Amino acid sequence: MCGIVGIIGNNHVASTIYECLTILQHRGQDAAGIATCQDGRLELVKNNGLVSDVFKSESAQILKGNAGIGHVRYPTAGSSNYEESQPFYVNSPFGIALAHNGNLHNAEQLKKELFAEDRRHINTHSDSEVLLNVFAHELQNASGLMITPEAVFHAVSRVHKRCQGAYANVLIIPGYGIVAFRDPNGIRPLVYGVRKSAEGDEYMVASESIALDLHHFELLDDVAPGEAIIITNDRQLHRRQCAENPQLSPCVFEYVYFARPDSMIDDVSVYKARLRMGEKLAERIKERWADEDIDVVIPIPESSRTSAIPMAYSLGVKFREGFIKNRYIGRTFIMPGQEQRIKSVRRKLNAVELEFRNKNVLLIDDSIVRGTTSRQIIQMAREAGAKKVFFASAAPPVRYPNVYGIDMPVAEELIAHNRTEEEIGELLGADGLIYQTLEDLEAACMEGNPKIDRFDSSCFSNEYVTNVPKEYFAKIGAMRSDDAKQ
Amino acid sequence: MCGIVGIIGNNHVASTIYECLTILQHRGQDAAGIATCQDGRLELVKNNGLVSDVFKSESAQILKGNAGIGHVRYPTAGSSNYEESQPFYVNSPFGIALAHNGNLHNAEQLKKELFAEDRRHINTHSDSEVLLNVFAHELQNASGLMITPEAVFHAVSRVHKRCQGAYANVLIIPGYGIVAFRDPNGIRPLVYGVRKSAEGDEYMVASESIALDLHHFELLDDVAPGEAIIITNDRQLHRRQCAENPQLSPCVFEYVYFARPDSMIDDVSVYKARLRMGEKLAERIKERWADEDIDVVIPIPESSRTSAIPMAYSLGVKFREGFIKNRYIGRTFIMPGQEQRIKSVRRKLNAVELEFRNKNVLLIDDSIVRGTTSRQIIQMAREAGAKKVFFASAAPPVRYPNVYGIDMPVAEELIAHNRTEEEIGELLGADGLIYQTLEDLEAACMEGNPKIDRFDSSCFSNEYVTNVPKEYFAKIGAMRSDDAKQ
Amino acid sequence: MCGIVGIIGNNHVASTIYECLTILQHRGQDAAGIATCQDGRLELVKNNGLVSDVFKSESAQILKGNAGIGHVRYPTAGSSNYEESQPFYVNSPFGIALAHNGNLHNAEQLKKELFAEDRRHINTHSDSEVLLNVFAHELQNASGLMITPEAVFHAVSRVHKRCQGAYANVLIIPGYGIVAFRDPNGIRPLVYGVRKSAEGDEYMVASESIALDLHHFELLDDVAPGEAIIITNDRQLHRRQCAENPQLSPCVFEYVYFARPDSMIDDVSVYKARLRMGEKLAERIKERWADEDIDVVIPIPESSRTSAIPMAYSLGVKFREGFIKNRYIGRTFIMPGQEQRIKSVRRKLNAVELEFRNKNVLLIDDSIVRGTTSRQIIQMAREAGAKKVFFASAAPPVRYPNVYGIDMPVAEELIAHNRTEEEIGELLGADGLIYQTLEDLEAACMEGNPKIDRFDSSCFSNEYVTNVPKEYFAKIGAMRSDDAKQ
Amino acid sequence: MCGIVGIIGNNHVASTIYECLTILQHRGQDAAGIATCQDGRLELVKNNGLVSDVFKSESAQILKGNAGIGHVRYPTAGSSNYEESQPFYVNSPFGIALAHNGNLHNAEQLKKELFAEDRRHINTHSDSEVLLNVFAHELQNASGLMITPEAVFHAVSRVHKRCQGAYANVLIIPGYGIVAFRDPNGIRPLVYGVRKSAEGDEYMVASESIALDLHHFELLDDVAPGEAIIITNDRQLHRRQCAENPQLSPCVFEYVYFARPDSMIDDVSVYKARLRMGEKLAERIKERWADEDIDVVIPIPESSRTSAIPMAYSLGVKFREGFIKNRYIGRTFIMPGQEQRIKSVRRKLNAVELEFRNKNVLLIDDSIVRGTTSRQIIQMAREAGAKKVFFASAAPPVRYPNVYGIDMPVAEELIAHNRTEEEIGELLGADGLIYQTLEDLEAACMEGNPKIDRFDSSCFSNEYVTNVPKEYFAKIGAMRSDDAKQ
Repeated sequence: MCGIVGIIGNNHVASTIYECLTILQHRGQDAAGIATCQDGRLELVKNNGLVSDVFKSESAQILKGNAGIGHVRYPTAGSSNYEESQPFYVNSPFGIALAHNGNLHNAEQLKKELFAEDRRHINTHSDSEVLLNVFAHELQNASGLMITPEAVFHAVSRVHKRCQGAYANVLIIPGYGIVAFRDPNGIRPLVYGVRKSAEGDEYMVASESIALDLHHFELLDDVAPGEAIIITNDRQLHRRQCAENPQLSPCVFEYVYFARPDSMIDDVSVYKARLRMGEKLAERIKERWADEDIDVVIPIPESSRTSAIPMAYSLGVKFREGFIKNRYIGRTFIMPGQEQRIKSVRRKLNAVELEFRNKNVLLIDDSIVRGTTSRQIIQMAREAGAKKVFFASAAPPVRYPNVYGIDMPVAEELIAHNRTEEEIGELLGADGLIYQTLEDLEAACMEGNPKIDRFDSSCFSNEYVTNVPKEYFAKIGAMRSDDAKQ
Repeated sequence: MCGIVGIIGNNHVASTIYECLTILQHRGQDAAGIATCQDGRLELVKNNGLVSDVFKSESAQILKGNAGIGHVRYPTAGSSNYEESQPFYVNSPFGIALAHNGNLHNAEQLKKELFAEDRRHINTHSDSEVLLNVFAHELQNASGLMITPEAVFHAVSRVHKRCQGAYANVLIIPGYGIVAFRDPNGIRPLVYGVRKSAEGDEYMVASESIALDLHHFELLDDVAPGEAIIITNDRQLHRRQCAENPQLSPCVFEYVYFARPDSMIDDVSVYKARLRMGEKLAERIKERWADEDIDVVIPIPESSRTSAIPMAYSLGVKFREGFIKNRYIGRTFIMPGQEQRIKSVRRKLNAVELEFRNKNVLLIDDSIVRGTTSRQIIQMAREAGAKKVFFASAAPPVRYPNVYGIDMPVAEELIAHNRTEEEIGELLGADGLIYQTLEDLEAACMEGNPKIDRFDSSCFSNEYVTNVPKEYFAKIGAMRSDDAKQ
Repeated sequence: MCGIVGIIGNNHVASTIYECLTILQHRGQDAAGIATCQDGRLELVKNNGLVSDVFKSESAQILKGNAGIGHVRYPTAGSSNYEESQPFYVNSPFGIALAHNGNLHNAEQLKKELFAEDRRHINTHSDSEVLLNVFAHELQNASGLMITPEAVFHAVSRVHKRCQGAYANVLIIPGYGIVAFRDPNGIRPLVYGVRKSAEGDEYMVASESIALDLHHFELLDDVAPGEAIIITNDRQLHRRQCAENPQLSPCVFEYVYFARPDSMIDDVSVYKARLRMGEKLAERIKERWADEDIDVVIPIPESSRTSAIPMAYSLGVKFREGFIKNRYIGRTFIMPGQEQRIKSVRRKLNAVELEFRNKNVLLIDDSIVRGTTSRQIIQMAREAGAKKVFFASAAPPVRYPNVYGIDMPVAEELIAHNRTEEEIGELLGADGLIYQTLEDLEAACMEGNPKIDRFDSSCFSNEYVTNVPKEYFAKIGAMRSDDAKQ
Repeated sequence: MCGIVGIIGNNHVASTIYECLTILQHRGQDAAGIATCQDGRLELVKNNGLVSDVFKSESAQILKGNAGIGHVRYPTAGSSNYEESQPFYVNSPFGIALAHNGNLHNAEQLKKELFAEDRRHINTHSDSEVLLNVFAHELQNASGLMITPEAVFHAVSRVHKRCQGAYANVLIIPGYGIVAFRDPNGIRPLVYGVRKSAEGDEYMVASESIALDLHHFELLDDVAPGEAIIITNDRQLHRRQCAENPQLSPCVFEYVYFARPDSMIDDVSVYKARLRMGEKLAERIKERWADEDIDVVIPIPESSRTSAIPMAYSLGVKFREGFIKNRYIGRTFIMPGQEQRIKSVRRKLNAVELEFRNKNVLLIDDSIVRGTTSRQIIQMAREAGAKKVFFASAAPPVRYPNVYGIDMPVAEELIAHNRTEEEIGELLGADGLIYQTLEDLEAACMEGNPKIDRFDSSCFSNEYVTNVPKEYFAKIGAMRSDDAKQ
């Protein structure tokens, strides 16, 4: 997963982009980059690491200009080499830099076409470099010596035809302006807004609306699926639907745990969606565990707190923060000849014993992926003296890989893959396990915006909103398995 | 404030100390240090910065040995030069390193005595270096050529006589062992525990019990006020009361916000004390604001959440996390010629609008010191659409300076200094403001351990448990004022 | 000035390139970079700083591949931004990286053409990026889907037509091989050699032959003026003259002081050329100062030592190293509120008093540019007790700017500009000043290779071997003046 | 070996000390440190690395004060841990920091005494820390509550009685001044000088006179063997002979290669001594090789150049710099899976072929220690085409270990140990080998100061000027062998 932002303003924009990347950093802590443009020259600073590590005070001397884009990366398909941090840049035609959130399925095929037909060399394993070159090639074909909105929209429509997968993009073209577009399913989020000013209106495009809020930009709209918007240097806003059959299908995982709760995504409040997840899950729990005497509801920090509060309320049970998160965990520090002795989850969480001692506790997490952490936490609850440990997941069982930009493990490493809820509960060591149904989850999200007909919920349902080639599953399987990562 | 830890174990202890300093880092993010001992040689790594910045992988090559002490520093009296990070070391007699949490009032006087009578040069402004040299001098006088428990206890009793203020200390003496002691009022916390092992029992001393928990040490006891304990290299534990009229008077601020909620301090659960603070405050609110129609209780993250939950429950009002904390704020990044434009509190917190829009909200914080942040937060609540904004403080009005190690501003900078609650509420811009009473606060803490007769609550009451010279108030006034810091 | 190198070998070449850049570092200490190619992917590490600072041990993990190019930069025209360190890269067509030594006069004009006609965006102020894009554009036009030697040679011939100035280049094209070429006047040096091996012959191209020597490559030849050579990945060597009227005109400054003495440049030993400079200068001295009683010849370290030895011999005067160079000078270290108090030349050199005391000394330097250093040194000689101080320059008076890649100051800052030798001598404070004649200097160099008809000696003669537009003189004047640099 | 400096001046002295350490850095490139004193507080910055690496611009903020001492370290006996960089500090009595050049033989014994009798803990393996504590202990015993010159001189006389070996020291005592003294044999050099000023005279103590020259201090004298000097804060200079039977016996190696040629050591010009070494060696060569037809004399850079010039002159043979030194060698850069392939001497030196081709060359080096480098250089000369290669050493055969602070290998690793000159010549692969005689070497040095009766020439003669215990030879053998270092 990644976070992106683009701004055209009245002053240097780099510090604003920096703040936006900081507040979007939950979308990617692996690498960060900013490209700005002044007097027709693009300046680029990017590297692996957190935003606060990548940008030094000297970066402020470099990143001048009143227009720019930024990116934070969470690695997905492809390696994590620092050269693969974004934005990417090509100098022909016109000079274009791109920041991309998402994932292409047919990047390998496109890479071959680009070299064979256009002699464009793709130097990294990143599908984002491929996407940029497809756009660049199509813009080169569509443009004369000057760039026009027509040419840009035509290039985007060609990208929609050639690129398969999920993508929300923001690009900057020196001397021209900023372009943003979203794939025809609108899988990854993208919003834009304006800040009115006497010196000229300023525009921002961002993955999540909190970036707009932070700087007092007014939210104008989500970029529609398939749509492209252009904000030229003279602050003209152009919009165009560039896809043939767009259908909004936002990733349901954004609501489950990925996005910040205080964001609006496709006109749905993430926070409210999570409250509703808790309420709906409470209903199921009342049905299933009517006879169980649950003493306390305890969320696994941090993202499940929002759901846990109304759930506890609805169940008529106390809500308590029984796990304290360690704010300062960093690198481990291992003496020569020794091994790490503390389980990693214990470095992150500590149980407040008196909330567990002799109680029946109901733990709630936003979802269960590999199950490793959940198992350790259940064990911590027992060591803290819990009589019974129940476990609830605000999302359904995760059984299939994600191909749209979330770095989920391969199917074989998912605890729910080919297992029933009962089998999973036993593996986790819980006295009871309950999952949200997919129906309830989607309902909890849709309630916020009845115009949404469907979500990408493929990790739960195995139904992908795009046509994913079989080879691609094999490829991400090979890349994401634990073995591959070591 | 500071955090300290000392360990004698069966293997290299530096990585364990590192983990402990990490989990104690809420007590001090300003500097960190570890001293270990192997084959009679002390190794020391210390510097300004977070634990994860101070210790590099090469530090693991240096910090060998099965005994050691560690320190995290939050600057109090004195400058923040890196040479003043701890542990401190003197080579005569025997070689002694010390980690200190607290504050001395008569450091200046002692410094003069040390030079004039013992020709000991104190090189820094740190009262901890003074304390170490007092101990060293007294141990030198009390010892023959060998160290005995008698000599150590005698030296501690002399420290009690000469040093005024608050101190919880852990020391390491190469070839001998570890020593820990606490001032006769037990103002700052200190616990110790054991981990049984076939290879020999391992001992840990630490500021808070969570450090023991993390590494599965069993809590043996708090170090009593005035008491000293020695764990020699052959794992003999010696204890002795070294003060004449010890009286336990723990700092009430540890319970209010300083300590981790999952710690036990002087046999009181910090977590439970905070729950009780919320309950007691709810009673006051019910009396005072019976007619107000409060829709929702919203804590100011993070430490007030524990109190807010039972408070909301007792008031019969919804509890909601209306402020989302930004996990990744770092340095600001300012373009040449520009100024910081986002208020600092907005970089840290964001309001979830729908929890405020058209509601009467009750915000709760653990305490109000300067009032600057509270005022900004109240304004954010209004901008998010709140009808009325009530504000509750889990602690009484902070009106007097702290002289026992907490870096509180001077009296003139405290919003409650010389003001009534009404005046404060107006200054904050709240529609209503309520404070915990000191009686209720102390009761909330005492309930956990009826043997505690009194607390150090001087910031609220102006009653100091030690005799503080007037000049000392003037001195810390001069050092801590905002002007002095710039 | 810059140093360049390119290698195709049987193993990873980055460490060999690193050693070559180290031994070529006298050609540029300002920035360094290496690009290598493995499996069709280019890896690039470059930055401002010395070779030993730019490449860290982790760079060795990145720079894989059996072919690569390297660059050390001494800033000339253009700014010294780190993005302008080399190699430069374009991805279309084919992917090409370039390392360039020299200077173009018509870069501004070419930059406009490239954007207007080919829509290629040039992002930096570097003429090397311009040169790369001219080559890329011409190769794109000349090639079909595959690269052929014909196409490469055609592209080089087009570069010769379009680019004016001095350039010695080495390029790498992933999946194809290495290309090297030199401008039609052969102003900047470029040699190549081979290392025979059972695994396949290995080739190196480099600015100076010492790079070949260091790794036991056998010198094959200088790249001829206007010539291009290609070494393909399968180790085929292709050569072609690509210019219409090439005429060898090497920069005479390489022999005077720029190149390493142990290098062969255009078949002339730099070392021997310098010996001859000393001998010829001795003849002039004998004529001019027959009556002066010179006691000792003292070189200004380091490059003038080679000339000084035979000069002293020929004059029948003792040769002595009267100045000791400080090997370890680094950054200055200035206390707050103080100023640098030691003259910069005193930080670099110290006089051995007894070689000066009561003697008539003849100092010799390779050339005199601004005169600032010479003046200070003459003063040091007097302070050390010299009776008379004579000064000899192994090169003629430097009176005109260099436009072929040497960062010479503007004419107004040259001490010899518009001044007679007598006036200069007075300004320097010397008791006598003598310059080599241009005739003698060129003779000293030509003797090594009678096929050389002419040199670029424009700094002395104001006769430039290419047609330099007047505006260009104005431009470098503006950039290089001391004012501009501050 | 090490370099030391101490200054009392009218302004902050840290930048002056920095410049001095830079110019003394040939005496030690391994670690560096500065301690300054302001308002009774010592500030200390020290670390492993070059002077220019250890001191950052922020160090200038720390190192305030008008008095200070500095140290550069070349590791000798003991490990090279960064904690063992100097100055060392003890806080009792008075606070004392010390910088030491030399080596003690009885450090182990003293360390035991210090702990057993004075309970002073020595924390490192450095004999300098031992020396400091001996001084501190004796000063503590000799002083009342105030420091007097008598007490200091008494403490130094006690140091002379207790410490065996070589030492030149400078110390700073906050609030008092600077102390310098030299062992009773004056083995390591130490000079002092004054800079007159209306604001008050400024004093400097340094290992070599060039440090004085650089800052225009006038050389007053060498510190005499056994003598101590004190410069108090009010600029009173006190001198006293503190040893019973002092006898000047300077280390002859300082003249051979260690010291800078432009220094005066014990009133002998190092430069002139080297000229005389060359002249005397020439006489021997004329006798021995009268029939050999030597074409050229070539020095091994850098220190042998001074001797080689008059030698060539006396022999009537050309002097040529046939080896060019690579100024920029740094860390090696090794690709994964590869090994270093260039011999280390080839990274440092390159032969100018035409000075060797078909010639009989006479190479000269200052001395031959292990012989490894000499052998490689002789081989390089042959590869460059030399007909015959003669080799001359300006010093006699090095056959015995150094125990006075020069990091010479153990006897077994010295090529001359237990070998005749003929055997050595064969091992080196030379066509002829000649050594200076010890008589000639000492004569070359003594000529400068007839008051010197003897040198420490123990590496050549096995006659040590102090009584060295047998165990000490075994100890340094164990530490310095190549095995021990790996």
